[in-house]
Amino acid sequence: MLVVMHHDAAASEVEAVCQTIRDMGYQPVPMPGEQRTAIGLIGNEGPVDDSQVVGLPGVAQVLHVSKPYKQVSREWKAETTLVTLGPGVVVGGRDVVVIAGPCSVESEEQIVASARAVRAAGATALRGGAFKPRSSPYSFQGLGKRGLELLALARQETGLPIVTEAMDEAGAELVAEYADCIQLGARNMQNYSLLRAVGRMKKPVLLKRGLAATITELLMSAEYILAAGNPQVILCERGVRTFDSAARNMFDLNAIPIVQRLSHLPIIADPSHGTGLRDKVTPMARAAVAAGADGIIVEVHPNPDRALSDGAQSLFPEQFAQLMEALRLIAGAIDRNVASPLHAELGIG
Amino acid sequence: MLVVMHHDAAASEVEAVCQTIRDMGYQPVPMPGEQRTAIGLIGNEGPVDDSQVVGLPGVAQVLHVSKPYKQVSREWKAETTLVTLGPGVVVGGRDVVVIAGPCSVESEEQIVASARAVRAAGATALRGGAFKPRSSPYSFQGLGKRGLELLALARQETGLPIVTEAMDEAGAELVAEYADCIQLGARNMQNYSLLRAVGRMKKPVLLKRGLAATITELLMSAEYILAAGNPQVILCERGVRTFDSAARNMFDLNAIPIVQRLSHLPIIADPSHGTGLRDKVTPMARAAVAAGADGIIVEVHPNPDRALSDGAQSLFPEQFAQLMEALRLIAGAIDRNVASPLHAELGIG
Amino acid sequence: MLVVMHHDAAASEVEAVCQTIRDMGYQPVPMPGEQRTAIGLIGNEGPVDDSQVVGLPGVAQVLHVSKPYKQVSREWKAETTLVTLGPGVVVGGRDVVVIAGPCSVESEEQIVASARAVRAAGATALRGGAFKPRSSPYSFQGLGKRGLELLALARQETGLPIVTEAMDEAGAELVAEYADCIQLGARNMQNYSLLRAVGRMKKPVLLKRGLAATITELLMSAEYILAAGNPQVILCERGVRTFDSAARNMFDLNAIPIVQRLSHLPIIADPSHGTGLRDKVTPMARAAVAAGADGIIVEVHPNPDRALSDGAQSLFPEQFAQLMEALRLIAGAIDRNVASPLHAELGIG
Amino acid sequence: MLVVMHHDAAASEVEAVCQTIRDMGYQPVPMPGEQRTAIGLIGNEGPVDDSQVVGLPGVAQVLHVSKPYKQVSREWKAETTLVTLGPGVVVGGRDVVVIAGPCSVESEEQIVASARAVRAAGATALRGGAFKPRSSPYSFQGLGKRGLELLALARQETGLPIVTEAMDEAGAELVAEYADCIQLGARNMQNYSLLRAVGRMKKPVLLKRGLAATITELLMSAEYILAAGNPQVILCERGVRTFDSAARNMFDLNAIPIVQRLSHLPIIADPSHGTGLRDKVTPMARAAVAAGADGIIVEVHPNPDRALSDGAQSLFPEQFAQLMEALRLIAGAIDRNVASPLHAELGIG
Repeated sequence: MLVVMHHDAAASEVEAVCQTIRDMGYQPVPMPGEQRTAIGLIGNEGPVDDSQVVGLPGVAQVLHVSKPYKQVSREWKAETTLVTLGPGVVVGGRDVVVIAGPCSVESEEQIVASARAVRAAGATALRGGAFKPRSSPYSFQGLGKRGLELLALARQETGLPIVTEAMDEAGAELVAEYADCIQLGARNMQNYSLLRAVGRMKKPVLLKRGLAATITELLMSAEYILAAGNPQVILCERGVRTFDSAARNMFDLNAIPIVQRLSHLPIIADPSHGTGLRDKVTPMARAAVAAGADGIIVEVHPNPDRALSDGAQSLFPEQFAQLMEALRLIAGAIDRNVASPLHAELGIG
Repeated sequence: MLVVMHHDAAASEVEAVCQTIRDMGYQPVPMPGEQRTAIGLIGNEGPVDDSQVVGLPGVAQVLHVSKPYKQVSREWKAETTLVTLGPGVVVGGRDVVVIAGPCSVESEEQIVASARAVRAAGATALRGGAFKPRSSPYSFQGLGKRGLELLALARQETGLPIVTEAMDEAGAELVAEYADCIQLGARNMQNYSLLRAVGRMKKPVLLKRGLAATITELLMSAEYILAAGNPQVILCERGVRTFDSAARNMFDLNAIPIVQRLSHLPIIADPSHGTGLRDKVTPMARAAVAAGADGIIVEVHPNPDRALSDGAQSLFPEQFAQLMEALRLIAGAIDRNVASPLHAELGIG
Repeated sequence: MLVVMHHDAAASEVEAVCQTIRDMGYQPVPMPGEQRTAIGLIGNEGPVDDSQVVGLPGVAQVLHVSKPYKQVSREWKAETTLVTLGPGVVVGGRDVVVIAGPCSVESEEQIVASARAVRAAGATALRGGAFKPRSSPYSFQGLGKRGLELLALARQETGLPIVTEAMDEAGAELVAEYADCIQLGARNMQNYSLLRAVGRMKKPVLLKRGLAATITELLMSAEYILAAGNPQVILCERGVRTFDSAARNMFDLNAIPIVQRLSHLPIIADPSHGTGLRDKVTPMARAAVAAGADGIIVEVHPNPDRALSDGAQSLFPEQFAQLMEALRLIAGAIDRNVASPLHAELGIG
Repeated sequence: MLVVMHHDAAASEVEAVCQTIRDMGYQPVPMPGEQRTAIGLIGNEGPVDDSQVVGLPGVAQVLHVSKPYKQVSREWKAETTLVTLGPGVVVGGRDVVVIAGPCSVESEEQIVASARAVRAAGATALRGGAFKPRSSPYSFQGLGKRGLELLALARQETGLPIVTEAMDEAGAELVAEYADCIQLGARNMQNYSLLRAVGRMKKPVLLKRGLAATITELLMSAEYILAAGNPQVILCERGVRTFDSAARNMFDLNAIPIVQRLSHLPIIADPSHGTGLRDKVTPMARAAVAAGADGIIVEVHPNPDRALSDGAQSLFPEQFAQLMEALRLIAGAIDRNVASPLHAELGIG
């Protein structure tokens, strides 16, 4: 931590900051300059809470040298964490994992058809929402527990592990009962009660970046889950909010290599929400893999024009099959591999 | 709703859109232009779900004419809603209500001293957090239920009604038991499960705007509460996130007159979070009242340098007293009135 | 400057950074920590160019303690700069200066009527564009030199000094010839050639903040003008671009007290562009004055519905007169004064 | 254009809007709804100037159906424009063009070494700044005309065409004299005087997106150049400004497929400014090509640690050579081709 004093700070104000640092159990290192004095703090083992210092008279700014997160950091654990979604489906290794399926579970027919179609094209996990966070209270809110049952049925039919969203603690317990991975959506990225709840569970968690969350905040939210005891976290870039409305979101692929440098947690990308426009999903899914993402999660619907939610950003099954072809080539170009659906070979479903 | 077709859309694509609109129970009005065809939709009584249309072949864009919210709209209810926090403390009328107190409840001594100080200066309600949403799992998380008990004690001592935050459903029930108004924080603005839960309660709700929420989304979140049966909602502008880090947030005072035109719900402003810097709180509190806010909520701490959270943005009691003087004059300039603490006159506390 | 090393930086990398700092003529102060080493730099008299250091192996981050600007800083000059626009019209003192007029100069009749109307209501300077930066090449681009002549005529009629925009060096010379203050618009805030050109002139400059410029960048652009020899700069907050499209811009009034702490240059606010909506101009003009702005610049048009540009955000003359009443009271509440049009008393015009 | 009336607009206000539309020479189509009336406008051949309508009493909102640009639109010209930078170096076709070189021209030795290195690795054009827009007036501003002479020398040595930036009209004329392509930087994207000036020249223009420019605004700025007579425009995504400071900019690769749908102009990407961090340049350059960019422009310096500007984001020559290998494979995966330096085969340089 570095405390920068105002240029006109009195010597007594500098000393008061030093004394406060000493009271906190650390050692102050004053560095007088021509313009102003700065005071370094040494002796800490991690981030220092600056609340005692930041409002002291004469303090202009407090700069942090240590990162605010700990267990999610690559400094804490050097090797990338491997998160297993199902038999042979591991996120964070050489394989690029593809999770595909409709926005919402709508019916048995729809979810089973979706699961078969995405498995045929090469997806290794199935997505589909049973609990849907919608900005309007009057929109379709998902099938709830019935949706989870249908997802379980689709898994039985195809062998694909299931990723689905939970919106609150009660829902998270239900999701943990039925699904292979609990997804936390963008709007709940800083729902700390929910983060703590899934941190106490034994299921992998897919944590999506908030609409206006910094990368540091995404990592801090993951820290909540690890701090509560669950190390199986997959991060997900899904587009953020900016000044331009040309796409539904701005897809921040810079986040992929940045997170991979800062954290050992795997990170995937969601080009469906990252663009919000069907004809942009394919190029941006390719870009995500080229940027080094550990996987993608993508919306595919057997009949997008009749989808109850997000139809406009869902791929047709044949578009998805074409995309998978391109992804295999691009993964190869950077010495990675698009995971194959082993289950198909094993005759499951 | 207006469906804008691509310039090269085929006549059959235009007709397919018209047919879909008819299937939805509305009437299409095609408007051929030199560049492209647009198709109006009439016969709706409120917002139309565009999910069946937006992904159809040939559709370039769907524009909405109706607002996505209903019960929060001034078109639904013309007169501003009056929300009563306590005896004589009404938000939304001619009075500008001032809610003040520390960021967190820390101890009996601290909260009672705070309550006395803010009442003496003229505040008419007390704020103070018992459940604190913190970006780090390692930061002080509030005193929980004990904090609520201390707030109730401070109310007993001073007569000031209490506003305090809830972070989840269980917490909301506790808060409703002890406090006069349930605050939902910026990070939970789109926690729909929580919105529905407080919508079923009989207590006033103070709903803060999310860090990157549009005004429309703020209103949609309030709609969740009203749709669940609770009409006592106060909105709060507390600063949003932008590209500039000169202040903790960018305080969007435009939101005050914009919300007042669109909605009948009262709106207050939080200059403490809106700036994050003590010496900016006073000018921006004045600005909020000049812009027409129905109240302000402001952090005041008897000893900010020793506060366990947000010390750097808390006013000293004497700064707050000075601010109150200026607010009285400014409210007078726009034919409003800063509410007086009636309780003092009644000899309470 | 503080150089933060990666947690796994080698001792040789730390030494290489220290050596580079010595080569630059400064003194390194290494501060080893549990997590990582940081290296302070002392001996500098102002901001240090970090380009030699930032890319060295092992460097994680470079933090700057000194501000990047110099002559615009309050540390350089403690008293607020007073900029004189015309006889008795001084920006930066106790007077709050009101500059008003139409977006564009359209005709002799229009500009003279505007000037008379705004002077009657109490404005002390006249605005009006002769060179208009328009996002479309097909929109009205202003009357050019003829517009300047008409402004000069309006000044002759009313005694009001003139503020008008220049878009390039040739235009700036023309504007300097006719007007009392050269305005640089938001889109040209980082047009460094133009900044240098007006820096060589002897006229006051009104520098508007760019659409996505940080406050630091606004000050750096002003630094260009001062560095070229012209100390008469007025800054202007005019709204920035964010994720919300509810208003044309987000009006960042936090900038007023922030700039006033950092710089000695006066700062005014433009509620017309800051909101873009006529019925929001009045409350936000009041808010700007309550926040401590040294003045406002506001669009007023004798017939807004027939304006050739920005009609929707221009006040009717009678709205402007009402606004002036409120501003006088609010200025009084914070011990300031709305400047009066002395010229009227002197019988000019 | 669609004019949406307030829900309480009077019939006379609706009629006044209709009459204004008729006065403008178009035909109004009123569409009364349950909530409010909307009025379509037909008979226009392109975008309609809404300034007469937007401020009329009772008008809530004006929505535009036509795009504000014309000549840059794919509706105006269906085939992608091919821009020739030099013999065999064409942007916009099947070839992905790689433009590489240092941020600034620093010396003859440096620019010639850079040119040789990037040509050896497979670049087909050379970048390098002679006029540098710097946020500080005290930073290195480029070698000016001498820099242009050195670039011409490097071209003579290697056969690589030259792309370099102009900051004002006088500079643009000099650049046009020496270089093969005039670059306009992000800060000048809305410098309309400069756009018009290069629009009158016969040289290709590389137009970079502004720091907070929407895609529509980027296209409008290109429209200025085409409207002035110069159709040889290459667009460039170079990162935009958002709330996150984890990277220097947020690299908006969504812009690539979005622009390619809306416009016939080729678009390239700049991963150096798009990330600002050397170790992020390689993955994001790959992502740009995977997203379908028509080329990339990338900073490569023979000795980045000694660069006078942007050293921290410049690739080492050997990193660049490795990147080129990956780009060839990725381009192949999407049926494109990384252009080869024909000149080398021809024995030039």
